[in-house]
Amino acid sequence: MTTVGILGGGQLARMLALSGAPLGLRFLVMDTAADACAGQFAPMVVGDYRDESALAEFASRVDVATFDFENVPAESAQWLAERIPVFPNPRALAIAQDRLAEKTMFRELGIPVPDFQAIDSREQLQAAVEQIGTPCILKTRRLGYDGKGQFRLRSPADVEGAWQALGAQASTVGLILEGFVAFERELSVVAVRGRNGEFRCWPLTENWHVDGVLSASLAPAPVDAALADQAFDHARRIAKSLDYVGVFALELFCRDGVLLANEVAPRVHNSGHWTIEGSETSQFQSHLRAVLGLPLGDTRMVGQACMLNWIGEMPAAEPVLAEPGGHWHDYGKQPRAGRKVGHATLRADNTAELVAVLGRVGQGLGRMEQVTPVIARLQEGAR
Amino acid sequence: MTTVGILGGGQLARMLALSGAPLGLRFLVMDTAADACAGQFAPMVVGDYRDESALAEFASRVDVATFDFENVPAESAQWLAERIPVFPNPRALAIAQDRLAEKTMFRELGIPVPDFQAIDSREQLQAAVEQIGTPCILKTRRLGYDGKGQFRLRSPADVEGAWQALGAQASTVGLILEGFVAFERELSVVAVRGRNGEFRCWPLTENWHVDGVLSASLAPAPVDAALADQAFDHARRIAKSLDYVGVFALELFCRDGVLLANEVAPRVHNSGHWTIEGSETSQFQSHLRAVLGLPLGDTRMVGQACMLNWIGEMPAAEPVLAEPGGHWHDYGKQPRAGRKVGHATLRADNTAELVAVLGRVGQGLGRMEQVTPVIARLQEGAR
Ligand SMILES: Nc1ncnc2c1ncn2[C@@H]1O[C@H](COP(=O)(O)OP(=O)(O)OP(=O)(O)O)[C@@H](O)[C@H]1O
Ligand SMILES: Nc1ncnc2c1ncn2[C@@H]1O[C@H](COP(=O)(O)OP(=O)(O)OP(=O)(O)O)[C@@H](O)[C@H]1O
Repeated sequence: MTTVGILGGGQLARMLALSGAPLGLRFLVMDTAADACAGQFAPMVVGDYRDESALAEFASRVDVATFDFENVPAESAQWLAERIPVFPNPRALAIAQDRLAEKTMFRELGIPVPDFQAIDSREQLQAAVEQIGTPCILKTRRLGYDGKGQFRLRSPADVEGAWQALGAQASTVGLILEGFVAFERELSVVAVRGRNGEFRCWPLTENWHVDGVLSASLAPAPVDAALADQAFDHARRIAKSLDYVGVFALELFCRDGVLLANEVAPRVHNSGHWTIEGSETSQFQSHLRAVLGLPLGDTRMVGQACMLNWIGEMPAAEPVLAEPGGHWHDYGKQPRAGRKVGHATLRADNTAELVAVLGRVGQGLGRMEQVTPVIARLQEGAR
Repeated sequence: MTTVGILGGGQLARMLALSGAPLGLRFLVMDTAADACAGQFAPMVVGDYRDESALAEFASRVDVATFDFENVPAESAQWLAERIPVFPNPRALAIAQDRLAEKTMFRELGIPVPDFQAIDSREQLQAAVEQIGTPCILKTRRLGYDGKGQFRLRSPADVEGAWQALGAQASTVGLILEGFVAFERELSVVAVRGRNGEFRCWPLTENWHVDGVLSASLAPAPVDAALADQAFDHARRIAKSLDYVGVFALELFCRDGVLLANEVAPRVHNSGHWTIEGSETSQFQSHLRAVLGLPLGDTRMVGQACMLNWIGEMPAAEPVLAEPGGHWHDYGKQPRAGRKVGHATLRADNTAELVAVLGRVGQGLGRMEQVTPVIARLQEGAR
């Protein structure tokens, strides 16, 4: 009997547990919140990731550990890794947690990145804004997620406001200034690497964000094969250089046909949720297979898929459930503004069908604004 | 928050809970065994189904109840149904629990059945064997499963042995004598009926039993459309007549191109396990959708699928996991002779691919005897 420990008990842990059950696995989830939604389907240890006695209990009850939450303190991951197998390894986690470290790695690997500079002081910010130019974005190096910890500067006059908003964090989580990329598309590679170094990607995914939070994902992204291959190649080199084991996502901007790396998420990723119904093996089960040294699952798609995120509260399920290819995912969370509470995946056998389904679901839920960009892309791609 | 109560905590309850999680459902499982495998992913009430205080606790904690186990005492189901919604309804359950009642219903609906007679005494058995002829099978009317509670009579001389084996049960669970059907195929209809009477079937499934226990299932069954339609029609009429809500299976023998009804299983069924990966919506989620009055899921297949049952102990997972369309289901049970401990589903895009996969898996596991009849059928169907 193998027990997999998961640090973090959100929807990712929940979907890992659900997808790992058929492998005969048991799970133990650690989270600071007793009502974390993974706890509905797996036993929990409730405690702070920095609390050594809670970590020790967790370690004593699992055979291997992995993450639902990428911001587990690097020291906690290290502490665990000295006692039990931990995948991905703590160094990969530490690099992916730090926007400066990951962008530096991208650059070293020859992967194009937006302009960036580390920011330690107001003076540095002033100088960097002049050098990089506006618009640009000041971000915390660590602990940002869903667009939090970011400040957009439209002109040099915004330096003051940016520093007031985030300056205090220069000495805690660190800051980085990035050039703003006027991208045509956002894409992500969801990939998996096994313990033996075997590497596989799901088809490239196109993503749409609203207020910094993922709103919709479409797979396969309607881009030409050469661009997709380049994205896969970037992901492969990153995975190798981190000696990564498990699933991760590489987020990319596409501007003038050039791919710029934004960040690596060292875990199963929201832009890969469509793989549950839209591919032969989901990112969740694939992650577990990788972590356990089992054969990786097939990443081939079954038709086409669009994932729609539900933020804040669940909409009515009916219009999705009534669709032949409509699949519902309610994470069992309390509603709260800005919170990811669920998603739907719409699977179809071809583009025309997917366009039709998206139209009906958008109408049925009164959410045309969420589906319109996806429909537009599909129609454009079909031309 | 809706909590679904499941009477019985085996692999069916486990797979119901796993497939219902994305609907935002919670589960409560009742079983007599504290280590029932559904308990790994859902909270449990441990108790006897006849224990009113345990049933009352169960009823107080759920919004609706359904079954993993068809032999829940009819009175317990009735007791519950007077307090909370129970699907399928207790009458449907009671009829499906009793081979005599269900065969009588088949006959009333004009659905062909093997010859049968109720047996109350040794004299009746003697007379019935003469009338029906040999070979024939003496079965308990209630509480049989996986071929248990059956005795095959090859000649009238076997009456003595049959009566010694099962005669004592004539006054408890009752007995029935059935003509032995020299069938060419065993088929099953897995179907779902909604609260509103909507009815859907998955593609017809062909099944192979070994020692009375399901060994392999193939979908779609390679039979002509008219035969499949007839099977669906039988299932539709049975569901309507029972006012059935949820998933059920109708087991059929096919002899000389004629379908004979064997039995109805009033629950998700082993011959529908392939629907997890092989169809748009699994029998498990569909059952929950029906029970909750949600739109039924699409039953269309995605390619072709073969399910292989693992009896007694799990074989090595590797040969299945290494297949692109190979999916593993370990129920998290202790090994025990004759126990269903897991299954695998092999999904493929076409017949040739499925034949190849079955060959490799059969070889890899040293289980050619399990896959050979399926391969033969696929090759025959392809001719
Ligand atoms: N340099 C940039 N140029 C243009 N847009 C950007 C840039 N950086 C971030 N964004 C926008 O903000 C979104 C969120 O930014 P980023 O991925 O850096 O933040 P995050 O908090 O880590 O988000 P997530 O948790 O979704 O990965 C991006 O997907 C993109 O839409
Ligand atoms: N009348 C019959 N003629 C020929 N074979 C039969 C007959 N009845 C049963 N069998 C064989 O035995 C198997 C199991 O019988 P049956 O379905 O009646 O029992 P069960 O205990 O309810 O099984 P299960 O739990 O698998 O449904 C059948 O699938 C079939 O292979």
